[in-house]
Amino acid sequence: MQHILSAEQFDDEQLQQLFVDADMFRQLDQSIESRREVMTRHTGRIMLSMFYEPSTRTRFSFEIAATKLGIGVVGTENAAEFSSAAKGETIEDTVKVFNEYGVDAINMRTKEEGHADRAASVSTVAIINGGDGKGEHPTQAALDLYTIKEQTGRLENLNIVMGGDLARGRTVRSLSKLITRYPGNKITYVSTPELQIGNDIKAQLDEHTTEYEETTEMLSALREADVVYWTRLQTERALTGSDVAVGQDHFIIDKTALEVLPKQAIIMHPLPRVGEITAAVDADPRAQYFRQAGNGLYIRMAMLDSIMKQRD
Amino acid sequence: MQHILSAEQFDDEQLQQLFVDADMFRQLDQSIESRREVMTRHTGRIMLSMFYEPSTRTRFSFEIAATKLGIGVVGTENAAEFSSAAKGETIEDTVKVFNEYGVDAINMRTKEEGHADRAASVSTVAIINGGDGKGEHPTQAALDLYTIKEQTGRLENLNIVMGGDLARGRTVRSLSKLITRYPGNKITYVSTPELQIGNDIKAQLDEHTTEYEETTEMLSALREADVVYWTRLQTERALTGSDVAVGQDHFIIDKTALEVLPKQAIIMHPLPRVGEITAAVDADPRAQYFRQAGNGLYIRMAMLDSIMKQRD
Amino acid sequence: MQHILSAEQFDDEQLQQLFVDADMFRQLDQSIESRREVMTRHTGRIMLSMFYEPSTRTRFSFEIAATKLGIGVVGTENAAEFSSAAKGETIEDTVKVFNEYGVDAINMRTKEEGHADRAASVSTVAIINGGDGKGEHPTQAALDLYTIKEQTGRLENLNIVMGGDLARGRTVRSLSKLITRYPGNKITYVSTPELQIGNDIKAQLDEHTTEYEETTEMLSALREADVVYWTRLQTERALTGSDVAVGQDHFIIDKTALEVLPKQAIIMHPLPRVGEITAAVDADPRAQYFRQAGNGLYIRMAMLDSIMKQRD
Repeated sequence: MQHILSAEQFDDEQLQQLFVDADMFRQLDQSIESRREVMTRHTGRIMLSMFYEPSTRTRFSFEIAATKLGIGVVGTENAAEFSSAAKGETIEDTVKVFNEYGVDAINMRTKEEGHADRAASVSTVAIINGGDGKGEHPTQAALDLYTIKEQTGRLENLNIVMGGDLARGRTVRSLSKLITRYPGNKITYVSTPELQIGNDIKAQLDEHTTEYEETTEMLSALREADVVYWTRLQTERALTGSDVAVGQDHFIIDKTALEVLPKQAIIMHPLPRVGEITAAVDADPRAQYFRQAGNGLYIRMAMLDSIMKQRD
Repeated sequence: MQHILSAEQFDDEQLQQLFVDADMFRQLDQSIESRREVMTRHTGRIMLSMFYEPSTRTRFSFEIAATKLGIGVVGTENAAEFSSAAKGETIEDTVKVFNEYGVDAINMRTKEEGHADRAASVSTVAIINGGDGKGEHPTQAALDLYTIKEQTGRLENLNIVMGGDLARGRTVRSLSKLITRYPGNKITYVSTPELQIGNDIKAQLDEHTTEYEETTEMLSALREADVVYWTRLQTERALTGSDVAVGQDHFIIDKTALEVLPKQAIIMHPLPRVGEITAAVDADPRAQYFRQAGNGLYIRMAMLDSIMKQRD
Repeated sequence: MQHILSAEQFDDEQLQQLFVDADMFRQLDQSIESRREVMTRHTGRIMLSMFYEPSTRTRFSFEIAATKLGIGVVGTENAAEFSSAAKGETIEDTVKVFNEYGVDAINMRTKEEGHADRAASVSTVAIINGGDGKGEHPTQAALDLYTIKEQTGRLENLNIVMGGDLARGRTVRSLSKLITRYPGNKITYVSTPELQIGNDIKAQLDEHTTEYEETTEMLSALREADVVYWTRLQTERALTGSDVAVGQDHFIIDKTALEVLPKQAIIMHPLPRVGEITAAVDADPRAQYFRQAGNGLYIRMAMLDSIMKQRD
């Protein structure tokens, strides 16, 4: 694990090890004594945080993860404006300079797809892709899979209902691809025809003989769900007003939806949400989206720990 | 002290304890040996810094206070643009996610009044209100009271002259409310009729039988002052040009004002100033506004220390 | 070394000591064990980072340097918008407040020339000038000199070819002034007449009888170079379109340029570059601009170490 670039780079063994480590880091985070011990693990290491696009969730959880492991953090939340990129520097040059600064990892979110790969191609320092435009967001994919495993106890024989903006949603695309690795899963995609999952994903599902279905009937889909993975309409990625209207009229997880949902099912969401799951759902034990966010911290601690161990 | 939301939440005993602790932290800050010892106090703790509105003074002093106590700091100075708020997330959701990240305090400045209370209502992690729009700024109020106590030796039987933009000034409003707790104080409000202190404050003063007076005669007021608390016209809070003109022609503390001011009086200002106290005043021993700013560091160390001790 | 304000404040003995220390810090940075030891040097110290103008290179390298030395870092990358400067506060007031916060150094980049000097005039805390508009950038000048010494083994009897935007380039101006201290050097300035080095610099070269030449013939100049110092057209400093065109047609270091350049020469650039050195040059052993950037980290560690030692 020199770089973390794509959700698909992890084999199942690596994922299972990350899950075990994430469990451990959550456990160690419960007392101040063990927290202090964890903080001595990687003292002397430094992570650079380069965010060319807004993010608090990914950036904060990575920077907190680093801090908890004793890794020093230096960075910018506004690289687009403040970095040398504004003066026309290539991503390769930027990364080559940071390689000279004696840092151990560069965690970056970029506007354009492929930037993380370009960064990795010139870097001996670990590149962590914190989301590259419409491309990959591997740490999100890993924490989603981890939450399913943690909450349902398995990654196979699951009925997974995904809803929202499936066409543009990076998380549903990544999760779909990863879930094809495990046998007996079925995915039900709930959306309007305009916002349905891409043909490339459907081709991959077919190739791995993972069953799937496309529907606009949310309630019927929920009735048989083990995992509900709901997403927001990504208005910041150039949606038209009509898309929003369509999405917001339908496909809202509320008390009515809870009534049809099986008792042992879990509800996930990458957050932030803007109404597609109502606040009334939060108190239901099946609502796991805040836990899921917290899992992001521990899976990122596991990843940073693994990267830094390799550098020792 | 689970959260710090309002200046009025502190009883006198708590305030006196904070003052004693602030004295101690100032003392410990004088040598590198004791600084290093202080830094071991809260290793393993993390404070999130979420600033939705510009601030360097409050943010820096809190982040320095945390760092000096060994508390790790992660944050954003531009939450309005970079956080999930920009995508329409509620403050409650934001805070619930951060509760999952294993942090110990969330220090926030928000645009809108009441946001800190809303944050606290869903948070088991300590919320520290670093200013919520026109609402509260409790750590500023505490440091103001601390400075008066430190410099005059008492909080009662004081003649306090407050000047500037009293209508909109958060600091003069908070200080007025706190000072009613102590007997024998008198407040003289110096401003134009348009910028005078609000009726809600006057009602509170009446209720506690704290004497007060409103005047436009600055020099007469200063002649009998123990404490002068001067403030800036807050042009960033939508003032009209005429307000500025009125304020800037009158009510400037300069060498002439120093001549009438009693020898033992002190001059305070929450800073920044933009001319309402001239630079020539700085060298006068009665000018305590820079000391006052420094007191902000030590009172914030005292608060963070108290919060973190409770979590141990 | 109370403050670091100007490249010219360092005498040769101080520079040589900085170079020795920078060598040492590079060495200590190679193993995690010695890194951890270095991190205990200045625990308890705090550096403020105040950037009123975009920068990642200077800011990151200073913040990484501080972190590696155990110095806590608090700061802003957007002081122009978020600090009290936006409310009309003078730089003197800002610095006086930070002096009260128990910090040990204030590292600042400002828009206007002279701001670092004004800051230092009211500060007992070390002011480090990270670039003040068209004024000074002393840490860049020191790292440039360090790189020349490190790579060529000397600072005298050098044939230095400087190219690009010499009229506005802060780095070529500073380096020219510093190099006059050492005997036997010759500078060849390669640029269009509009972008040639200023008369003030030429007067200083004459005064110290440092030989120099102005030319538009890049290849002839390179043929005899020991050091090539190339720079970018600073479009962010109000260049007209015609300037850009002129600069970009000529004066590009590429494979053709490499052919005429002596084997033992070195190529430097303060970075970022935007085409004036082609990427194909990077693999050539004479290309030292990334190493030069890394030297910035170690020279800044040396400076911070020296400042903090004096405070102990």
